[in-house]
Amino acid sequence: MSGNLADIGLIGLAVMGQNLILNMNDKGFTVCAFNRTTSKVDHFLQNEAKGTKVIGAYSVEELCAKLKKPRRIILLVKAGSAVDDFIKALIPHLEQGDIIIDGGNSHFPDSIRRAKELEAKGLLFVGSGVSGGEEGARYGPSLMPGGSPAAWPHIQEIFQKTAAQVNGEPCCDWVGENGSGHYVKMVHNGIEYGDMQLIAEAYDILKRGLGLEESEIADIFARWNKGVLDSFLIEITANILKFNDDDGQPIVTKILDQAGQKGTGKWTAQAALDAGMPVTLIGEAVFARCLSAIKNERTRASKVLAGPQKEPFRGDKQQFIDDLEQALYASKIISYTQGFILFRQAAKEYGWNLNYAGIARMWRGGCIIKSVFLGDITNAYTKNHDLESLLFDDFFLKAIHKAQPGWRRVCAQATLWGVPIPAFSSALSFFDGYRSEVVPANLLQAQRDYFGAHTFRVLPGKENERLVANEDIHINWTGRGGTTASTSYVV
Amino acid sequence: MSGNLADIGLIGLAVMGQNLILNMNDKGFTVCAFNRTTSKVDHFLQNEAKGTKVIGAYSVEELCAKLKKPRRIILLVKAGSAVDDFIKALIPHLEQGDIIIDGGNSHFPDSIRRAKELEAKGLLFVGSGVSGGEEGARYGPSLMPGGSPAAWPHIQEIFQKTAAQVNGEPCCDWVGENGSGHYVKMVHNGIEYGDMQLIAEAYDILKRGLGLEESEIADIFARWNKGVLDSFLIEITANILKFNDDDGQPIVTKILDQAGQKGTGKWTAQAALDAGMPVTLIGEAVFARCLSAIKNERTRASKVLAGPQKEPFRGDKQQFIDDLEQALYASKIISYTQGFILFRQAAKEYGWNLNYAGIARMWRGGCIIKSVFLGDITNAYTKNHDLESLLFDDFFLKAIHKAQPGWRRVCAQATLWGVPIPAFSSALSFFDGYRSEVVPANLLQAQRDYFGAHTFRVLPGKENERLVANEDIHINWTGRGGTTASTSYVV
Repeated sequence: MSGNLADIGLIGLAVMGQNLILNMNDKGFTVCAFNRTTSKVDHFLQNEAKGTKVIGAYSVEELCAKLKKPRRIILLVKAGSAVDDFIKALIPHLEQGDIIIDGGNSHFPDSIRRAKELEAKGLLFVGSGVSGGEEGARYGPSLMPGGSPAAWPHIQEIFQKTAAQVNGEPCCDWVGENGSGHYVKMVHNGIEYGDMQLIAEAYDILKRGLGLEESEIADIFARWNKGVLDSFLIEITANILKFNDDDGQPIVTKILDQAGQKGTGKWTAQAALDAGMPVTLIGEAVFARCLSAIKNERTRASKVLAGPQKEPFRGDKQQFIDDLEQALYASKIISYTQGFILFRQAAKEYGWNLNYAGIARMWRGGCIIKSVFLGDITNAYTKNHDLESLLFDDFFLKAIHKAQPGWRRVCAQATLWGVPIPAFSSALSFFDGYRSEVVPANLLQAQRDYFGAHTFRVLPGKENERLVANEDIHINWTGRGGTTASTSYVV
Repeated sequence: MSGNLADIGLIGLAVMGQNLILNMNDKGFTVCAFNRTTSKVDHFLQNEAKGTKVIGAYSVEELCAKLKKPRRIILLVKAGSAVDDFIKALIPHLEQGDIIIDGGNSHFPDSIRRAKELEAKGLLFVGSGVSGGEEGARYGPSLMPGGSPAAWPHIQEIFQKTAAQVNGEPCCDWVGENGSGHYVKMVHNGIEYGDMQLIAEAYDILKRGLGLEESEIADIFARWNKGVLDSFLIEITANILKFNDDDGQPIVTKILDQAGQKGTGKWTAQAALDAGMPVTLIGEAVFARCLSAIKNERTRASKVLAGPQKEPFRGDKQQFIDDLEQALYASKIISYTQGFILFRQAAKEYGWNLNYAGIARMWRGGCIIKSVFLGDITNAYTKNHDLESLLFDDFFLKAIHKAQPGWRRVCAQATLWGVPIPAFSSALSFFDGYRSEVVPANLLQAQRDYFGAHTFRVLPGKENERLVANEDIHINWTGRGGTTASTSYVV
């Protein structure tokens, strides 16, 4: 071992970078810190990193000279050209087998490109999602590294020790090839959007539907946090709803109802559209934020658009609250089902060997969506790596069957109340479509053939002389003839 | 007037191109036809175009020599590099003020780029959506031209005479600048996806929910076609459902329920996500096609996932069918509301002066979504070009209020039946969110501030010493402190 050389280098001393360095230092690794504005290096060494084994570098060259080989360098800089700039600056000082790790929020197509470019030069690339914010970085984030497989043995120990631990298992595992680490981080964020939207809808139903106060709703979330919904987001929701302003009013009722988006949630929905996979819940969650953003328009609309006649709830309140718990749980199962269906398609499209059980395990702790639930997903994919979807797993099959009646009652009731439930209802429609051997897309196909001669295929079992299996069939629907698809079998 | 010169040139003699030429010829214009494979020119002149005034050209140079000035040349070639190749080939033979019109299905960012490139050379560019398929092209399509405004006076007569006519008005008007014509065509197609999905859901509810036969459902659609839903798609749906195979079985029941997508519907949803506008119905319609596509997986799922206990419908069937008509109508109002909200945002983003009334007028005839409904939208935007959204127009405001009770009953009933209604329910959730002055995004903002110190703003009217107007506010929710947003006001 080279005495004074560092185990790993890190570029980018914003709070995330500083915290990750201190975390790695705590776990026994020597880190060399560098920042473009080098005064930050001094400041960090003299303050936050004082008394640690952290060393500093004042140029990219010096950084590379102070690292053990193969060199391991984490970039924690702004996604985009800054990443490319640092990679370009590093290359002349690196040797075959050295590893550049991009820990920023890069878009996965950039990571695919960078992996290719670096591997062509004999270097290794890792794009790693880092989740859990500043606190996660400091005490144990969820780390989702993917890229050049040859890099993994050289970073595994550092990454797994630095990551959050759940039941003695690290929230970090190898994801797959080239851009897959950032892809998984992207979908993680999309799922986070979905989980948050589901909670917001449950809150809205309890408040506007059932007419409960924030303190009562806080108690409900606190109780849910002891059951199947046990998770960080449910826990903090209870805390938030209990948090009162000086006048005793819940502070949440004083917060402007305009949420931002444009980031990774949007990317997830767009990636789903590109992949042709029905990730409806995340899509609705992103759109719900868009709708929240046009607050002034909503305010004006609220003056002219009337809702349904408000009828008092005559049912059993506790039963309804229990139904709502099941509705949230079932919708969450659907959201993760959709996320993993998207992974399956992405793996096919990009040639990734994705570690499904590992992905769920990485998310069990250290990040915003951490939950007991993710342990159950880990189990499902550990039992069967080739699971077609979560809904085929016994545990989730039973769970969703159990949840179904309450889920439906809640959606129907919210519909009659006029409380918007884009995520709940979209999840239920997905479930009802997914479990339908026949959906009405036959009519779409007939329409497309009718107006555009786009042809259709025959339903298996219904073949006859006119309707031939595996042929593109066109029918002269109007008797007027004329329009025929050029490459089609014409009835 | 130059005696033997043609009024307009057209490149690309596939069926669409041929039909558009014959249509323009019928309207009294002399068209010069060119095709890269020149044997097609001969074949066309000797067959379909025999006896017409159509003339031919066998090179790009000859085409340009045979046109009146300013030259008007329509490209009807495959979207993508073929368009750029022809533009490149044309440029040396063109003069200042000549007009290149791309009538293909180009993606609007390409049209924005092409307009810029051609205008820099003193040429004019028009990107025009052409809708209505082969039959529309032949007898009157919907034409949606946008691009260099100086081009419009030179193409207006040809375009408006060639387009479909409704009540003596052409289904063609100037859309706006650079890529706006193709943008409008893209959203048109997205709306077409939405309309088709709504009809499919209505069919599914009548069949799987109410248990009606195709012939009965055909009668319902035929009746709806005489009311507010009067439209081409409703009309052909009635015809399709009546169309029986030789064995007397409705042929639609023998069509494979797998619909394709990937085209302009997907682009619309992605553009909506980029614009940050909640175009949820088109999003769900695209995803519904994605779900239809995984037929084998649905089939396997249908064996293990059970739906709700099927209860016979005890209500008034005719009342329910009338409710369904209103549900379809209301959802359609929402879909077009969303489409026009997207236009408004696109106009802002790309600096387009969009002709909203004109867009609706262009869609009234000649295309797949043609309907009486679009006349009402034309009226709304003619009365008020600056209408914030369709829901603020008196006509639609009354219509949606009238539809609301039935719409809710249908959505609640389908939810209990287990019939998937992604488009119906997503439309209703949008409506309920849109008419809400306060949506639960306040909780999202609280969560984001809790776990990531992302800050929030105070709700107007709730300001106090801690909650200052127009400031990014962070609260130390846990009392643990530490995590503060760098640029935020810290309570």
